[in-house]
Amino acid sequence: MSLSISELNRLKHAPDADGVLPIFLERWSPRAFDNRDVSPADLAKVFEAARWAASSGNGQPWKFLVGTRNSATHNKIYEALVDFNKEWAGHAPVLILGTALAVSPHSGKPNAYALYDLGAAASYLTLQAASQGLVAHQMGGFSHDTARRLLEIPDNYALGSVIALGYQGEPAALPTPTLVEREVAPRERKPTKDIVFSSWNVPADFS
Amino acid sequence: MSLSISELNRLKHAPDADGVLPIFLERWSPRAFDNRDVSPADLAKVFEAARWAASSGNGQPWKFLVGTRNSATHNKIYEALVDFNKEWAGHAPVLILGTALAVSPHSGKPNAYALYDLGAAASYLTLQAASQGLVAHQMGGFSHDTARRLLEIPDNYALGSVIALGYQGEPAALPTPTLVEREVAPRERKPTKDIVFSSWNVPADFS
Repeated sequence: MSLSISELNRLKHAPDADGVLPIFLERWSPRAFDNRDVSPADLAKVFEAARWAASSGNGQPWKFLVGTRNSATHNKIYEALVDFNKEWAGHAPVLILGTALAVSPHSGKPNAYALYDLGAAASYLTLQAASQGLVAHQMGGFSHDTARRLLEIPDNYALGSVIALGYQGEPAALPTPTLVEREVAPRERKPTKDIVFSSWNVPADFS
Repeated sequence: MSLSISELNRLKHAPDADGVLPIFLERWSPRAFDNRDVSPADLAKVFEAARWAASSGNGQPWKFLVGTRNSATHNKIYEALVDFNKEWAGHAPVLILGTALAVSPHSGKPNAYALYDLGAAASYLTLQAASQGLVAHQMGGFSHDTARRLLEIPDNYALGSVIALGYQGEPAALPTPTLVEREVAPRERKPTKDIVFSSWNVPADFS
């Protein structure tokens, strides 16, 4: 299986849906990264998008740690990854760890929306990246304990995902057959009737 | 203060940022809704966008309950809102409650990314809505207990936000001076140096 990047991106494209923003249909999460670095100006743009996400009470609980290739932070985030992700994610020129203040800065009470809001900001970030011709792959597969220890993250911050960010690479350059197979597998989602309901057990009717 | 909708949307527009997708800069969370209903076809599109969000292990834990005006589900979601949100959100033609399966469907173990993933899908939904000329306002201000009871939501689903969705209304039509004041207040975010760091206490340098 030797697909080019453009062939692969056609394969991964969601079915056309009239009136749906192309960026939602085009974005996917590759594991193959090119060696090319992301310029500081391009990196600033993905965070500018994240900055404008909505959050509970406009609390903006997110705090992103960003490590560029060969930096101590890149190395530390990499070190926290599970073995499967270590096989590929180290090639990404940028590794980001999303965190969120999990208590209200006013009352000190738990903020039940910290991770929810971080998930939103991270999706702004990854969509913006796609619009710039970058690719991003979010991972939950890392040791939270190791990340906390190496990056000195206080207990009152919850951890979200590690985001590998960079330019897309040739799928065939991935180091194992399993990774190549996953890279070229079709992009699948549940049908709408399994995710949108008019009451708990009744799928919504859009006719 | 009597701003028109278009004057208000200019005021709310984030500062121009070269290369950042306009939808991130334009989207905001109004509370004033017009009486106009959202067509089923338009409603289907916002969920089509949500469907393509990324999630941990592609688990797609989200399940949305959608209530259109005068439906039992609209009434029940409204009933769960805190008093402040009851003042305005009932005018929205669509009320949505986002929920997420909080355990792995395979292992039954807790899924720490359920709300994170739901936050992502909800942001796809609200951005797509903005691209269609709709507006959406997410709320954490509702009784989870009441929502669970009235909508018969099982314990293994976590609750995200209530999303009021519809067409934007005249700000001056909001029922209280406090609501009008909030509607026309500038849209504010933390500066990048407070949310992006190269190590825990060192803001990232994009120069």
